[in-house]
Amino acid sequence: MSELDRLRVVLVASRNPLNIGAAARAMSNFGCAHLRVVNPYEPAFREARSAVGASELLARAEVYEGVGAAVSDCALVVGTTAVRHRVLQQPLHRLEYGGRVIRKRLASGRTASGRVALLFGSERVGLSNEDMSHCHWLMRIPTCEENISMNLGQAVAVCLYELARTEKAARESTKKEPAKAEDVERMTEVLHEALGLSGYPGPRGSNELKIRRLLRRMSLSAVDAEVWLGVLRHILWKIKS
Amino acid sequence: MSELDRLRVVLVASRNPLNIGAAARAMSNFGCAHLRVVNPYEPAFREARSAVGASELLARAEVYEGVGAAVSDCALVVGTTAVRHRVLQQPLHRLEYGGRVIRKRLASGRTASGRVALLFGSERVGLSNEDMSHCHWLMRIPTCEENISMNLGQAVAVCLYELARTEKAARESTKKEPAKAEDVERMTEVLHEALGLSGYPGPRGSNELKIRRLLRRMSLSAVDAEVWLGVLRHILWKIKS
Repeated sequence: MSELDRLRVVLVASRNPLNIGAAARAMSNFGCAHLRVVNPYEPAFREARSAVGASELLARAEVYEGVGAAVSDCALVVGTTAVRHRVLQQPLHRLEYGGRVIRKRLASGRTASGRVALLFGSERVGLSNEDMSHCHWLMRIPTCEENISMNLGQAVAVCLYELARTEKAARESTKKEPAKAEDVERMTEVLHEALGLSGYPGPRGSNELKIRRLLRRMSLSAVDAEVWLGVLRHILWKIKS
Repeated sequence: MSELDRLRVVLVASRNPLNIGAAARAMSNFGCAHLRVVNPYEPAFREARSAVGASELLARAEVYEGVGAAVSDCALVVGTTAVRHRVLQQPLHRLEYGGRVIRKRLASGRTASGRVALLFGSERVGLSNEDMSHCHWLMRIPTCEENISMNLGQAVAVCLYELARTEKAARESTKKEPAKAEDVERMTEVLHEALGLSGYPGPRGSNELKIRRLLRRMSLSAVDAEVWLGVLRHILWKIKS
Protein backbone atom coordinates (compact mmCIF):
# COMPACT_ATOMS: atom_id res chain seq x y z
CA MET A 1 0.00 0.00 0.00
CA SER A 2 1.35 3.39 -1.02
CA GLU A 3 1.68 6.03 1.68
CA LEU A 4 -0.54 8.32 -0.36
CA ASP A 5 -3.29 5.80 0.35
CA ARG A 6 -3.63 7.47 3.74
CA LEU A 7 -4.24 10.86 2.12
CA ARG A 8 -7.77 12.21 1.61
CA VAL A 9 -8.11 14.86 -1.09
CA VAL A 10 -11.07 17.06 -0.17
CA LEU A 11 -12.55 19.37 -2.82
CA VAL A 12 -14.77 21.99 -1.22
CA ALA A 13 -17.58 23.66 -3.22
CA SER A 14 -15.93 23.00 -6.59
CA ARG A 15 -17.87 24.67 -9.39
CA ASN A 16 -16.67 22.93 -12.56
CA PRO A 17 -17.07 19.13 -12.78
CA LEU A 18 -14.22 19.08 -15.31
CA ASN A 19 -11.92 20.29 -12.54
CA ILE A 20 -13.14 17.54 -10.22
CA GLY A 21 -12.41 15.04 -13.00
CA ALA A 22 -8.97 16.55 -13.59
CA ALA A 23 -8.24 16.31 -9.86
CA ALA A 24 -9.27 12.63 -9.96
CA ARG A 25 -6.96 12.03 -12.93
CA ALA A 26 -3.99 13.62 -11.12
CA MET A 27 -4.80 11.54 -8.02
CA SER A 28 -4.69 8.35 -10.04
CA ASN A 29 -1.42 9.49 -11.68
CA PHE A 30 0.20 9.76 -8.26
CA GLY A 31 -1.38 6.75 -6.54
CA CYS A 32 -3.83 8.56 -4.31
CA ALA A 33 -7.21 6.78 -4.29
CA HIS A 34 -9.52 8.59 -1.86
CA LEU A 35 -11.45 11.61 -3.10
CA ARG A 36 -13.95 13.48 -0.95
CA VAL A 37 -16.22 16.15 -2.34
CA VAL A 38 -18.00 18.72 -0.17
CA ASN A 39 -21.06 20.48 -1.60
CA PRO A 40 -20.16 20.33 -5.29
CA TYR A 41 -21.89 22.94 -7.45
CA GLU A 42 -22.77 20.24 -9.99
CA PRO A 43 -24.05 17.07 -8.27
CA ALA A 44 -23.52 15.04 -11.49
CA PHE A 45 -19.75 15.54 -11.30
CA ARG A 46 -19.10 11.79 -11.58
CA GLU A 47 -19.59 11.92 -15.33
CA ALA A 48 -16.68 14.34 -15.87
CA ARG A 49 -14.86 13.26 -19.00
CA SER A 50 -11.63 14.81 -17.79
CA ALA A 51 -11.10 11.92 -15.35
CA VAL A 52 -9.09 9.98 -17.95
CA GLY A 53 -8.03 6.68 -16.41
CA ALA A 54 -9.70 7.65 -13.13
CA SER A 55 -13.40 6.91 -13.67
CA GLU A 56 -13.45 4.26 -10.92
CA LEU A 57 -11.81 6.61 -8.47
CA LEU A 58 -14.41 9.25 -9.32
CA ALA A 59 -17.24 6.72 -8.98
CA ARG A 60 -16.02 5.89 -5.45
CA ALA A 61 -15.71 9.56 -4.38
CA GLU A 62 -17.51 10.31 -1.12
CA VAL A 63 -19.83 13.31 -0.92
CA TYR A 64 -20.20 15.34 2.29
CA GLU A 65 -22.33 18.30 3.30
CA GLY A 66 -19.68 19.99 5.40
CA VAL A 67 -15.92 20.17 5.88
CA GLY A 68 -16.21 18.98 9.50
CA ALA A 69 -17.72 15.64 8.46
CA ALA A 70 -15.35 15.26 5.51
CA VAL A 71 -12.23 15.47 7.70
CA SER A 72 -13.53 13.88 10.91
CA ASP A 73 -11.41 10.69 10.66
CA CYS A 74 -8.17 12.53 9.81
CA ALA A 75 -5.47 13.40 12.35
CA LEU A 76 -3.96 16.23 10.30
CA VAL A 77 -6.03 18.66 8.22
CA VAL A 78 -4.23 20.99 5.81
CA GLY A 79 -5.86 23.70 3.70
CA THR A 80 -4.43 25.08 0.46
CA THR A 81 -4.61 28.76 -0.39
CA ALA A 82 -3.28 31.18 -2.98
CA VAL A 83 -3.94 34.13 -0.73
CA ARG A 84 -0.84 35.88 0.45
CA HIS A 85 -1.88 39.28 1.67
CA ARG A 86 -5.11 38.58 3.52
CA VAL A 87 -4.27 38.27 7.18
CA LEU A 88 -4.47 34.55 7.81
CA GLN A 89 -5.38 33.29 11.24
CA GLN A 90 -3.34 30.12 10.84
CA PRO A 91 0.27 29.21 10.13
CA LEU A 92 1.07 29.27 6.40
CA HIS A 93 3.79 27.08 4.86
CA ARG A 94 5.12 26.86 1.34
CA LEU A 95 4.42 23.57 -0.41
CA GLU A 96 8.07 22.47 -0.27
CA TYR A 97 8.04 22.62 3.54
CA GLY A 98 4.42 21.64 4.14
CA GLY A 99 4.74 18.70 1.75
CA ARG A 100 7.63 17.36 3.78
CA VAL A 101 5.62 17.56 7.00
CA ILE A 102 2.68 15.75 5.37
CA ARG A 103 4.96 13.07 3.91
CA LYS A 104 6.43 12.37 7.34
CA ARG A 105 2.99 12.08 8.85
CA LEU A 106 1.77 9.73 6.12
CA ALA A 107 4.89 7.59 6.54
CA SER A 108 4.89 7.39 10.32
CA GLY A 109 1.25 6.92 11.19
CA ARG A 110 -0.66 3.68 11.52
CA THR A 111 -4.31 3.55 10.48
CA ALA A 112 -6.14 6.73 11.48
CA SER A 113 -3.22 8.51 13.15
CA GLY A 114 -1.44 8.80 9.79
CA ARG A 115 -4.51 9.91 7.90
CA VAL A 116 -4.17 13.40 6.41
CA ALA A 117 -6.83 15.54 4.71
CA LEU A 118 -5.72 18.02 2.05
CA LEU A 119 -8.36 20.65 1.25
CA PHE A 120 -8.84 22.62 -1.96
CA GLY A 121 -11.41 25.43 -2.13
CA SER A 122 -13.68 26.55 -4.95
CA GLU A 123 -12.29 27.93 -8.22
CA ARG A 124 -13.60 31.42 -7.52
CA VAL A 125 -12.91 32.15 -3.89
CA GLY A 126 -10.86 29.28 -2.51
CA LEU A 127 -11.49 28.07 1.02
CA SER A 128 -13.67 30.22 3.28
CA ASN A 129 -12.61 31.26 6.79
CA GLU A 130 -15.11 28.70 8.10
CA ASP A 131 -13.47 25.96 5.95
CA MET A 132 -9.99 27.03 7.07
CA SER A 133 -10.97 26.94 10.73
CA HIS A 134 -11.01 23.13 10.44
CA CYS A 135 -7.35 23.12 9.35
CA HIS A 136 -4.26 22.68 11.51
CA TRP A 137 -2.32 24.87 9.09
CA LEU A 138 -2.36 26.21 5.54
CA MET A 139 -0.11 25.63 2.57
CA ARG A 140 0.56 27.59 -0.60
CA ILE A 141 2.11 26.66 -3.92
CA PRO A 142 5.03 29.04 -4.61
CA THR A 143 3.46 30.92 -7.53
CA CYS A 144 4.52 34.36 -8.84
CA GLU A 145 3.05 37.59 -7.56
CA GLU A 146 1.85 38.38 -11.09
CA ASN A 147 -0.50 35.40 -11.28
CA ILE A 148 -0.92 33.60 -7.98
CA SER A 149 -4.15 31.78 -8.79
CA MET A 150 -3.81 28.29 -10.23
CA ASN A 151 -6.33 26.12 -12.00
CA LEU A 152 -7.83 23.64 -9.49
CA GLY A 153 -6.80 20.50 -11.39
CA GLN A 154 -3.27 21.81 -11.86
CA ALA A 155 -3.00 22.78 -8.18
CA VAL A 156 -4.03 19.27 -7.13
CA ALA A 157 -1.48 17.76 -9.56
CA VAL A 158 1.34 19.96 -8.23
CA CYS A 159 0.56 19.20 -4.56
CA LEU A 160 0.34 15.44 -5.16
CA TYR A 161 3.58 15.49 -7.15
CA GLU A 162 5.30 17.15 -4.19
CA LEU A 163 3.95 14.43 -1.89
CA ALA A 164 4.96 11.64 -4.32
CA ARG A 165 8.39 13.05 -5.09
CA THR A 166 11.31 11.45 -3.29
CA GLU A 167 14.77 12.84 -2.75
CA LYS A 168 16.23 9.36 -3.06
CA ALA A 169 14.74 8.93 -6.49
CA ALA A 170 16.26 12.28 -7.37
CA ARG A 171 19.57 10.49 -7.41
CA GLU A 172 18.31 7.62 -9.54
CA SER A 173 18.76 7.90 -13.23
CA THR A 174 19.23 5.59 -16.15
CA LYS A 175 22.85 6.03 -17.05
CA LYS A 176 24.23 3.92 -19.82
CA GLU A 177 27.43 1.94 -19.39
CA PRO A 178 30.36 4.20 -20.28
CA ALA A 179 32.74 3.25 -23.11
CA LYS A 180 35.97 1.51 -22.18
CA ALA A 181 39.25 3.31 -22.93
CA GLU A 182 40.24 0.71 -25.54
CA ASP A 183 37.09 1.42 -27.57
CA VAL A 184 37.64 5.18 -27.48
CA GLU A 185 41.29 4.61 -28.40
CA ARG A 186 40.21 2.51 -31.39
CA MET A 187 38.01 5.45 -32.51
CA THR A 188 40.99 7.75 -32.02
CA GLU A 189 43.13 5.62 -34.31
CA VAL A 190 40.53 5.34 -37.06
CA LEU A 191 39.64 9.05 -37.00
CA HIS A 192 43.31 10.01 -36.91
CA GLU A 193 44.02 7.82 -39.93
CA ALA A 194 41.05 9.25 -41.83
CA LEU A 195 42.19 12.81 -41.12
CA GLY A 196 45.75 12.00 -42.18
CA LEU A 197 44.44 10.71 -45.51
CA SER A 198 42.13 13.72 -45.89
CA GLY A 199 44.92 16.27 -45.63
CA TYR A 200 43.77 17.68 -42.28
CA PRO A 201 46.34 20.41 -41.44
CA GLY A 202 48.82 20.27 -38.56
CA PRO A 203 51.64 17.97 -37.45
CA ARG A 204 50.50 14.33 -37.10
CA GLY A 205 51.76 13.99 -33.51
CA SER A 206 49.92 16.97 -32.08
CA ASN A 207 46.83 16.16 -34.16
CA GLU A 208 46.70 12.75 -32.55
CA LEU A 209 46.69 14.24 -29.05
CA LYS A 210 44.04 16.76 -30.09
CA ILE A 211 41.79 14.00 -31.45
CA ARG A 212 42.35 11.81 -28.40
CA ARG A 213 41.33 14.63 -26.06
CA LEU A 214 38.38 15.61 -28.28
CA LEU A 215 36.95 12.09 -28.17
CA ARG A 216 37.41 11.75 -24.38
CA ARG A 217 35.49 14.99 -23.81
CA MET A 218 32.45 13.34 -25.44
CA SER A 219 32.08 10.98 -22.43
CA LEU A 220 30.67 8.31 -24.73
CA SER A 221 28.58 5.36 -23.66
CA ALA A 222 29.73 1.88 -24.72
CA VAL A 223 26.86 1.64 -27.22
CA ASP A 224 27.53 5.05 -28.76
CA ALA A 225 31.27 4.34 -29.02
CA GLU A 226 30.40 1.26 -31.07
CA VAL A 227 28.12 3.29 -33.38
CA TRP A 228 30.83 5.93 -33.81
CA LEU A 229 33.46 3.30 -34.57
CA GLY A 230 31.22 1.89 -37.32
CA VAL A 231 30.62 5.37 -38.74
CA LEU A 232 34.33 6.24 -38.75
CA ARG A 233 35.37 2.90 -40.27
CA HIS A 234 32.93 3.39 -43.13
CA ILE A 235 34.29 6.86 -43.80
CA LEU A 236 37.89 5.59 -43.64
CA TRP A 237 36.99 2.77 -46.02
CA LYS A 238 35.43 5.26 -48.46
CA ILE A 239 38.48 7.53 -48.27
CA LYS A 240 40.82 4.61 -48.91
CA SER A 241 38.86 3.16 -51.84
CA MET B 1 14.77 38.59 -14.23
CA SER B 2 13.77 35.14 -13.07
CA GLU B 3 15.89 32.20 -14.10
CA LEU B 4 12.83 30.59 -15.66
CA ASP B 5 12.95 33.45 -18.14
CA ARG B 6 15.66 31.47 -19.93
CA LEU B 7 13.34 28.47 -20.31
CA ARG B 8 11.39 27.87 -23.52
CA VAL B 9 8.31 25.67 -23.14
CA VAL B 10 7.71 23.94 -26.49
CA LEU B 11 4.33 22.28 -27.13
CA VAL B 12 4.55 19.93 -30.10
CA ALA B 13 1.42 19.05 -32.12
CA SER B 14 -0.97 19.80 -29.27
CA ARG B 15 -4.53 18.86 -30.17
CA ASN B 16 -6.69 20.72 -27.67
CA PRO B 17 -6.36 24.53 -27.49
CA LEU B 18 -7.66 24.38 -23.91
CA ASN B 19 -4.53 22.44 -23.00
CA ILE B 20 -2.32 25.07 -24.65
CA GLY B 21 -4.17 27.71 -22.63
CA ALA B 22 -3.77 25.68 -19.44
CA ALA B 23 -0.04 25.34 -20.14
CA ALA B 24 0.16 29.13 -20.59
CA ARG B 25 -1.64 29.66 -17.27
CA ALA B 26 0.79 27.35 -15.44
CA MET B 27 3.71 29.14 -17.09
CA SER B 28 2.48 32.49 -15.84
CA ASN B 29 1.92 30.98 -12.36
CA PHE B 30 5.59 30.01 -12.18
CA GLY B 31 7.17 33.03 -13.92
CA CYS B 32 8.00 31.44 -17.25
CA ALA B 33 7.15 33.77 -20.12
CA HIS B 34 8.24 32.14 -23.38
CA LEU B 35 5.88 29.69 -25.05
CA ARG B 36 6.63 28.05 -28.39
CA VAL B 37 4.07 26.02 -30.30
CA VAL B 38 4.97 23.56 -33.06
CA ASN B 39 2.25 22.55 -35.54
CA PRO B 40 -0.79 23.01 -33.30
CA TYR B 41 -3.86 21.02 -34.38
CA GLU B 42 -6.00 24.14 -33.90
CA PRO B 43 -4.30 27.27 -35.36
CA ALA B 44 -6.71 29.55 -33.42
CA PHE B 45 -5.30 28.35 -30.09
CA ARG B 46 -4.66 31.91 -28.92
CA GLU B 47 -8.30 32.35 -27.95
CA ALA B 48 -8.20 29.52 -25.39
CA ARG B 49 -10.22 30.63 -22.39
CA SER B 50 -8.25 28.37 -20.08
CA ALA B 51 -5.31 30.81 -20.14
CA VAL B 52 -6.64 32.66 -17.09
CA GLY B 53 -4.25 35.52 -16.29
CA ALA B 54 -1.99 34.47 -19.18
CA SER B 55 -3.68 35.90 -22.27
CA GLU B 56 -0.70 38.17 -23.04
CA LEU B 57 1.71 35.27 -22.75
CA LEU B 58 -0.46 33.27 -25.14
CA ALA B 59 -0.67 36.20 -27.56
CA ARG B 60 3.12 36.39 -27.66
CA ALA B 61 3.57 32.62 -28.23
CA GLU B 62 5.78 31.82 -31.23
CA VAL B 63 4.62 29.28 -33.79
CA TYR B 64 7.07 26.96 -35.59
CA GLU B 65 6.70 24.34 -38.27
CA GLY B 66 9.26 21.95 -36.84
CA VAL B 67 11.00 21.03 -33.61
CA GLY B 68 14.43 21.82 -35.06
CA ALA B 69 13.56 25.47 -35.66
CA ALA B 70 11.75 25.77 -32.33
CA VAL B 71 14.81 24.74 -30.30
CA SER B 72 17.59 26.14 -32.50
CA ASP B 73 18.68 28.88 -30.06
CA CYS B 74 18.71 26.60 -27.01
CA ALA B 75 21.84 24.97 -25.61
CA LEU B 76 19.97 22.19 -23.79
CA VAL B 77 16.90 20.45 -25.20
CA VAL B 78 14.89 18.14 -22.92
CA GLY B 79 11.89 16.05 -23.96
CA THR B 80 9.18 14.83 -21.60
CA THR B 81 7.66 11.38 -21.90
CA ALA B 82 5.31 9.10 -20.00
CA VAL B 83 6.61 6.04 -21.81
CA ARG B 84 8.48 3.64 -19.62
CA HIS B 85 8.62 0.34 -21.43
CA ARG B 86 9.33 1.37 -24.99
CA VAL B 87 13.05 1.10 -25.56
CA LEU B 88 14.21 4.69 -25.54
CA GLN B 89 17.25 5.68 -27.52
CA GLN B 90 18.17 8.45 -25.12
CA PRO B 91 18.96 8.76 -21.41
CA LEU B 92 15.81 9.02 -19.29
CA HIS B 93 15.75 10.84 -15.95
CA ARG B 94 13.03 11.25 -13.35
CA LEU B 95 11.76 14.81 -12.95
CA GLU B 96 13.38 15.20 -9.51
CA TYR B 97 16.83 14.60 -11.00
CA GLY B 98 16.28 16.15 -14.43
CA GLY B 99 14.74 19.24 -12.88
CA ARG B 100 17.86 19.78 -10.82
CA VAL B 101 20.07 19.54 -13.90
CA ILE B 102 17.88 22.05 -15.76
CA ARG B 103 17.81 24.43 -12.78
CA LYS B 104 21.59 24.43 -12.64
CA ARG B 105 21.83 25.14 -16.35
CA LEU B 106 19.33 27.99 -16.14
CA ALA B 107 21.18 29.46 -13.16
CA SER B 108 24.69 29.21 -14.55
CA GLY B 109 24.28 30.22 -18.17
CA ARG B 110 24.50 33.69 -19.64
CA THR B 111 22.30 34.57 -22.60
CA ALA B 112 21.97 31.68 -25.03
CA SER B 113 24.23 29.23 -23.23
CA GLY B 114 21.74 29.04 -20.37
CA ARG B 115 18.73 28.74 -22.62
CA VAL B 116 16.85 25.46 -22.16
CA ALA B 117 13.97 24.06 -24.24
CA LEU B 118 11.47 21.77 -22.51
CA LEU B 119 9.32 19.78 -24.97
CA PHE B 120 5.84 18.33 -24.45
CA GLY B 121 4.27 16.06 -27.08
CA SER B 122 0.70 15.73 -28.24
CA GLU B 123 -2.07 14.52 -25.91
CA ARG B 124 -2.53 11.27 -27.81
CA VAL B 125 0.94 9.99 -28.62
CA GLY B 126 3.43 12.26 -26.91
CA LEU B 127 6.67 13.12 -28.68
CA SER B 128 7.59 11.14 -31.79
CA ASN B 129 10.98 9.50 -32.25
CA GLU B 130 11.77 12.30 -34.72
CA ASP B 131 10.87 14.94 -32.08
CA MET B 132 12.94 13.12 -29.43
CA SER B 133 15.98 12.95 -31.70
CA HIS B 134 16.38 16.72 -31.16
CA CYS B 135 16.67 16.18 -27.39
CA HIS B 136 19.82 15.79 -25.30
CA TRP B 137 17.88 13.60 -22.88
CA LEU B 138 14.36 12.73 -21.75
CA MET B 139 12.53 13.25 -18.50
CA ARG B 140 9.50 11.61 -16.94
CA ILE B 141 7.17 12.65 -14.16
CA PRO B 142 7.15 9.89 -11.49
CA THR B 143 3.58 8.69 -12.07
CA CYS B 144 2.12 5.30 -11.04
CA GLU B 145 2.21 2.24 -13.26
CA GLU B 146 -1.61 2.14 -13.12
CA ASN B 147 -2.08 5.49 -14.83
CA ILE B 148 1.13 6.93 -16.25
CA SER B 149 -0.43 9.39 -18.69
CA MET B 150 -0.98 12.90 -17.40
CA ASN B 151 -3.12 15.69 -18.78
CA LEU B 152 -0.90 18.08 -20.78
CA GLY B 153 -1.70 21.20 -18.75
CA GLN B 154 -1.13 19.32 -15.50
CA ALA B 155 2.16 17.88 -16.75
CA VAL B 156 3.41 21.37 -17.65
CA ALA B 157 2.36 22.68 -14.22
CA VAL B 158 4.16 19.85 -12.40
CA CYS B 159 7.40 20.29 -14.40
CA LEU B 160 7.45 24.06 -13.91
CA TYR B 161 6.75 23.67 -10.20
CA GLU B 162 9.77 21.36 -9.94
CA LEU B 163 11.89 24.00 -11.71
CA ALA B 164 10.53 26.84 -9.52
CA ARG B 165 10.78 24.94 -6.23
CA THR B 166 13.75 25.72 -4.03
CA GLU B 167 15.19 23.65 -1.23
CA LYS B 168 16.05 26.82 0.68
CA ALA B 169 12.44 27.90 0.64
CA ALA B 170 11.57 24.49 1.97
CA ARG B 171 13.01 25.69 5.25
CA GLU B 172 11.10 28.98 5.17
CA SER B 173 7.81 29.09 6.95
CA THR B 174 5.72 31.66 8.71
CA LYS B 175 6.04 30.71 12.33
CA LYS B 176 4.30 32.84 14.90
CA GLU B 177 6.16 34.18 17.90
CA PRO B 178 5.99 31.60 20.67
CA ALA B 179 4.41 32.46 24.01
CA LYS B 180 6.71 33.48 26.84
CA ALA B 181 6.89 31.26 29.93
CA GLU B 182 5.27 33.93 32.13
CA ASP B 183 2.16 34.01 29.93
CA VAL B 184 1.81 30.24 29.96
CA GLU B 185 2.36 30.26 33.73
CA ARG B 186 -0.43 32.85 34.12
CA MET B 187 -2.73 30.48 32.20
CA THR B 188 -1.62 27.66 34.49
CA GLU B 189 -2.59 29.64 37.57
CA VAL B 190 -6.00 30.64 36.25
CA LEU B 191 -6.87 27.15 34.99
CA HIS B 192 -5.65 25.58 38.20
CA GLU B 193 -7.79 27.94 40.28
CA ALA B 194 -10.83 27.26 38.10
CA LEU B 195 -10.38 23.50 38.46
CA GLY B 196 -9.93 23.81 42.23
CA LEU B 197 -13.27 25.66 42.46
CA SER B 198 -14.93 23.12 40.10
CA GLY B 199 -14.08 20.13 42.30
CA TYR B 200 -11.68 18.59 39.80
CA PRO B 201 -10.44 15.37 41.50
CA GLY B 202 -6.85 14.77 42.69
CA PRO B 203 -4.44 16.43 45.15
CA ARG B 204 -3.90 20.13 44.41
CA GLY B 205 -0.12 19.87 44.22
CA SER B 206 0.04 17.10 41.62
CA ASN B 207 -2.86 18.65 39.69
CA GLU B 208 -0.85 21.87 39.36
CA LEU B 209 2.11 20.00 37.85
CA LYS B 210 -0.23 18.08 35.51
CA ILE B 211 -1.83 21.32 34.29
CA ARG B 212 1.54 23.03 33.90
CA ARG B 213 2.86 20.21 31.73
CA LEU B 214 -0.42 19.98 29.76
CA LEU B 215 -0.24 23.66 28.81
CA ARG B 216 3.46 23.47 27.85
CA ARG B 217 2.76 20.58 25.49
CA MET B 218 0.46 22.88 23.51
CA SER B 219 3.50 24.92 22.29
CA LEU B 220 1.31 28.03 22.16
CA SER B 221 2.04 31.15 20.17
CA ALA B 222 2.07 34.48 22.03
CA VAL B 223 -1.22 35.48 20.38
CA ASP B 224 -2.96 32.21 21.19
CA ALA B 225 -1.74 32.29 24.80
CA GLU B 226 -3.42 35.69 25.14
CA VAL B 227 -6.69 34.36 23.68
CA TRP B 228 -6.57 31.36 26.03
CA LEU B 229 -5.90 33.57 29.04
CA GLY B 230 -8.98 35.65 28.19
CA VAL B 231 -11.09 32.50 27.78
CA LEU B 232 -9.92 31.01 31.08
CA ARG B 233 -10.36 34.27 33.02
CA HIS B 234 -13.96 34.54 31.82
CA ILE B 235 -14.65 30.98 32.90
CA LEU B 236 -13.03 31.59 36.30
CA TRP B 237 -15.05 34.78 36.71
CA LYS B 238 -18.29 32.88 35.94
CA ILE B 239 -17.39 30.10 38.38
CA LYS B 240 -16.66 32.63 41.14
CA SER B 241 -19.82 34.69 40.60
